[in-house]
Amino acid sequence: MNNRPPRTTHRFQISTRLAYQLAQDGWLLLNVAATRGATQRVVSENISNSLGADFREQAVPEDASRFHGLPVPAGDVEIVYKAIVERDITDYVSSEVEVESPLIDLPPEVVRFLYPSRYCESDKLARLAAKAFGDLNPGHERVAGICNWLYHQIDYQPGMTDAHTSAVECLTLRGGVCRDFAHLGITFCRAMGIPARYGSAYAFELVQPDFHAFFEVWLEGKWWCYDATRLAPQEGFIRVGVGHDAADTSVATMSASAQLLNMEISVEKLSQTPVPYSEAPIGF
Amino acid sequence: MNNRPPRTTHRFQISTRLAYQLAQDGWLLLNVAATRGATQRVVSENISNSLGADFREQAVPEDASRFHGLPVPAGDVEIVYKAIVERDITDYVSSEVEVESPLIDLPPEVVRFLYPSRYCESDKLARLAAKAFGDLNPGHERVAGICNWLYHQIDYQPGMTDAHTSAVECLTLRGGVCRDFAHLGITFCRAMGIPARYGSAYAFELVQPDFHAFFEVWLEGKWWCYDATRLAPQEGFIRVGVGHDAADTSVATMSASAQLLNMEISVEKLSQTPVPYSEAPIGF
Amino acid sequence: MNNRPPRTTHRFQISTRLAYQLAQDGWLLLNVAATRGATQRVVSENISNSLGADFREQAVPEDASRFHGLPVPAGDVEIVYKAIVERDITDYVSSEVEVESPLIDLPPEVVRFLYPSRYCESDKLARLAAKAFGDLNPGHERVAGICNWLYHQIDYQPGMTDAHTSAVECLTLRGGVCRDFAHLGITFCRAMGIPARYGSAYAFELVQPDFHAFFEVWLEGKWWCYDATRLAPQEGFIRVGVGHDAADTSVATMSASAQLLNMEISVEKLSQTPVPYSEAPIGF
Amino acid sequence: MNNRPPRTTHRFQISTRLAYQLAQDGWLLLNVAATRGATQRVVSENISNSLGADFREQAVPEDASRFHGLPVPAGDVEIVYKAIVERDITDYVSSEVEVESPLIDLPPEVVRFLYPSRYCESDKLARLAAKAFGDLNPGHERVAGICNWLYHQIDYQPGMTDAHTSAVECLTLRGGVCRDFAHLGITFCRAMGIPARYGSAYAFELVQPDFHAFFEVWLEGKWWCYDATRLAPQEGFIRVGVGHDAADTSVATMSASAQLLNMEISVEKLSQTPVPYSEAPIGF
Repeated sequence: MNNRPPRTTHRFQISTRLAYQLAQDGWLLLNVAATRGATQRVVSENISNSLGADFREQAVPEDASRFHGLPVPAGDVEIVYKAIVERDITDYVSSEVEVESPLIDLPPEVVRFLYPSRYCESDKLARLAAKAFGDLNPGHERVAGICNWLYHQIDYQPGMTDAHTSAVECLTLRGGVCRDFAHLGITFCRAMGIPARYGSAYAFELVQPDFHAFFEVWLEGKWWCYDATRLAPQEGFIRVGVGHDAADTSVATMSASAQLLNMEISVEKLSQTPVPYSEAPIGF
Repeated sequence: MNNRPPRTTHRFQISTRLAYQLAQDGWLLLNVAATRGATQRVVSENISNSLGADFREQAVPEDASRFHGLPVPAGDVEIVYKAIVERDITDYVSSEVEVESPLIDLPPEVVRFLYPSRYCESDKLARLAAKAFGDLNPGHERVAGICNWLYHQIDYQPGMTDAHTSAVECLTLRGGVCRDFAHLGITFCRAMGIPARYGSAYAFELVQPDFHAFFEVWLEGKWWCYDATRLAPQEGFIRVGVGHDAADTSVATMSASAQLLNMEISVEKLSQTPVPYSEAPIGF
Repeated sequence: MNNRPPRTTHRFQISTRLAYQLAQDGWLLLNVAATRGATQRVVSENISNSLGADFREQAVPEDASRFHGLPVPAGDVEIVYKAIVERDITDYVSSEVEVESPLIDLPPEVVRFLYPSRYCESDKLARLAAKAFGDLNPGHERVAGICNWLYHQIDYQPGMTDAHTSAVECLTLRGGVCRDFAHLGITFCRAMGIPARYGSAYAFELVQPDFHAFFEVWLEGKWWCYDATRLAPQEGFIRVGVGHDAADTSVATMSASAQLLNMEISVEKLSQTPVPYSEAPIGF
Repeated sequence: MNNRPPRTTHRFQISTRLAYQLAQDGWLLLNVAATRGATQRVVSENISNSLGADFREQAVPEDASRFHGLPVPAGDVEIVYKAIVERDITDYVSSEVEVESPLIDLPPEVVRFLYPSRYCESDKLARLAAKAFGDLNPGHERVAGICNWLYHQIDYQPGMTDAHTSAVECLTLRGGVCRDFAHLGITFCRAMGIPARYGSAYAFELVQPDFHAFFEVWLEGKWWCYDATRLAPQEGFIRVGVGHDAADTSVATMSASAQLLNMEISVEKLSQTPVPYSEAPIGF
């Protein structure tokens, strides 16, 4: 894999503004901050709320997700998060990545991404996945085949699905949004024995600014990013959360009486080192 | 909580014999060994297989689950695991445990047991759980109320459910086995905002010897064991695995061509310090 | 049953105005006309459309449902239906109706309302229904018990369910609209061996004017009307359709490119013979 | 369609023996007798039971299904049905049948086979069916395309599905038995706007003798038989029941305490006018 392109760094300015209303005293647990890691660095950031209260911040060591908790009295509250983030584009998935590890060679923290989860019922799709993708070469070619299938068979169609929709339901309906594309991609991969997990991100050049969903698969000892929606270049993803599926990767976990009133998101590129968009998935 | 009973220790001899057949070369990843911890100690153990091959053992640090991996050529294989395990009975749940922590006070490794999982679709049952259990006092009383509801409303009935059955399906069918009781208990707890997770164990005095399933809830800063089936005393559970639900707590993860031919389990009590069985759930 | 009230007749003026848009040439099959029968008589009626085209009218002999078909070119179309309908209030269900017929005594055209249908999966709820309603006396008392259960356990809550929601899903969610209440009532009845079917109607005094859904059960050799929503007096229902469930009782069956733009409904009482509203269900 | 083959008549001897056990007094309603019609004639038949009791026979006029009801005391009962049936092979579906009627031209008794039913959730598959079969020519070519898809994509695999499995579930699992093939075929047809219904039959040369399931579609003003399983020649089907799906076409409807102990079926051909088996579906 000597022929991979050299490291390229992009600098983005991201922000989100979230307005909630609570009928009773409660709390919010937010997952909106960019993760900190070797290839994604938070240069500066600020999170504030209209209550003037302190957030309780916690980071999950194993995947670098960061949570901001806030007790909120009944009434309205607004949260604003802003950050400048540097993101390296180092690792291109290529057809050279063609090894799928047998389960017993996987580390335990990866094994758990083989099991079915709330929105990714891979136990139900073993036979279908084997018929559809069993003849493809293992590794990147198989995952790319899954992405191409999703792109051509599932319509990107807001309004068909909701927060309870699972991968099997999306497969039946043949429509959905980025979250559903990620769920179904994960489900097919797990059904084929490839560890796969869900990611959420700010996405540069996403036409309707929103948190975006993608998925990652474990090949040759690392996680690679895939996005079957083709809605935005993967070089412009600034990662926020990672988990089994949308169940444990949501932007906010709230007390029962809380309600989202409004959400605004913006992503701007500060540095000018353009990387050409390609059909081939690109790793984080 | 000064009036809790003093520490009592039981010593058990456990064993399991598993026979598999593989149509092609493949592997097995077994989760059959007793966990090692402060209140459950493995005095001695041995795991062997008919191939005379070495297992690759891995332990998950966060929950002490232990996995034994084995590459297996096409054909038959038998695995035998035997251990002597000491288990303390220290902590009785009582009505004194009546605090349910708000989400933002929970450690991140506990927060994730609030989210719905493959077989525990708590996102679908928020309203039903609030109607059924919302008027109970928080803490042990609420969880005990859930267990009593399960015991009286769900028939323990082998054959009605299978490995794909979820909590919502069991709720509809009103029948199931220990696995379904645990899934539905977990689901109701999560729907009420109480972290809950799935456990598997060897169970002393279980009439049809098998791996048993129970569930645990997080109250007052620790995990407490509950079992709505009332099939065996909780003092006799020797814990094997713990996870979101049966999806990540199964006895064996196998390659596609593997098939379980036979399973035998035995649990004997070696020490003689009987503890009376009570309706009140008892902690690990 | 000599003590039933004497025949009372009400006269209602009903109307509906429906606007559709078709992306391509297609058709509409409408089920909006009042049925004609011994206890509900159409005094006068008129149906027209903005195309000036003739409708093709068909009546289903066995249940008196009436369909109006219309080929529609691409573009907009408006349909207006108006009628004056007389409806007798003759038969009050009472606790005297306490016989549930064994299946082999039912006429074949009634037997088919014992089987599960698209939105009424009674095959899944046999055990739950027996636990919940098995101890009630057969006949009206059991069906009234089902209606009371629905009224108290299911929240009338527009927006929770949609056109694909089934009875089992509503049971899980604990919320829905009149359509869901009817589906779940039907499902419980069928699960208990009582034939039950779905009805749609114009409903006098329904606060948000819309087509209303109710259900009917077969007891003592005739169909009786039940409505667990308690949203409008049953004396004011002017029946339009009847079927297995909403699948075959919808207001309009349309070609794929058709879309409902607007619907208006009005129901006025012309005669002045008020009948007091009671909790007890009242037959057609 | 002048080039269709001349009428050919086959004579079959069919029989079934059914043993039931009832825990309490109850009843059985059987649907095992051959239908009587223009192209299928019952030459002689006999139905008897081990109780020596009289059956109550009812025929459904619209589809010729015949039901035999029997009150049964607690205990065992055996039913034996035998008949000699003549069946004409007259109408071959061919590519000439290429007209799909618009809904408004269908008779009401056919319209109802366009709506989704318990096991055929066609409302969920509109988009998938349009993508998969929308480019085929209308009529026989489209239905044959659906059958070919089923034959190649769904594994005939007893044990994967049960009496509660629906078409959407079979589509996900990619396996099932004749009942599931029929359900999915019906569902795809209805989703494409083609009326379709379920049929049950005795089937000559079916390797594991059992009641067989097929489906029928409405094209050019009549019902045509299709069977995607390719398990037995359609010339050898002796029709028993027809309905929306297996929900209203089952061999027996029983009181709750009844249980099937044993079922034997035999089909022999008495006349010797062989008709070659072809891939092209053949009408009744």
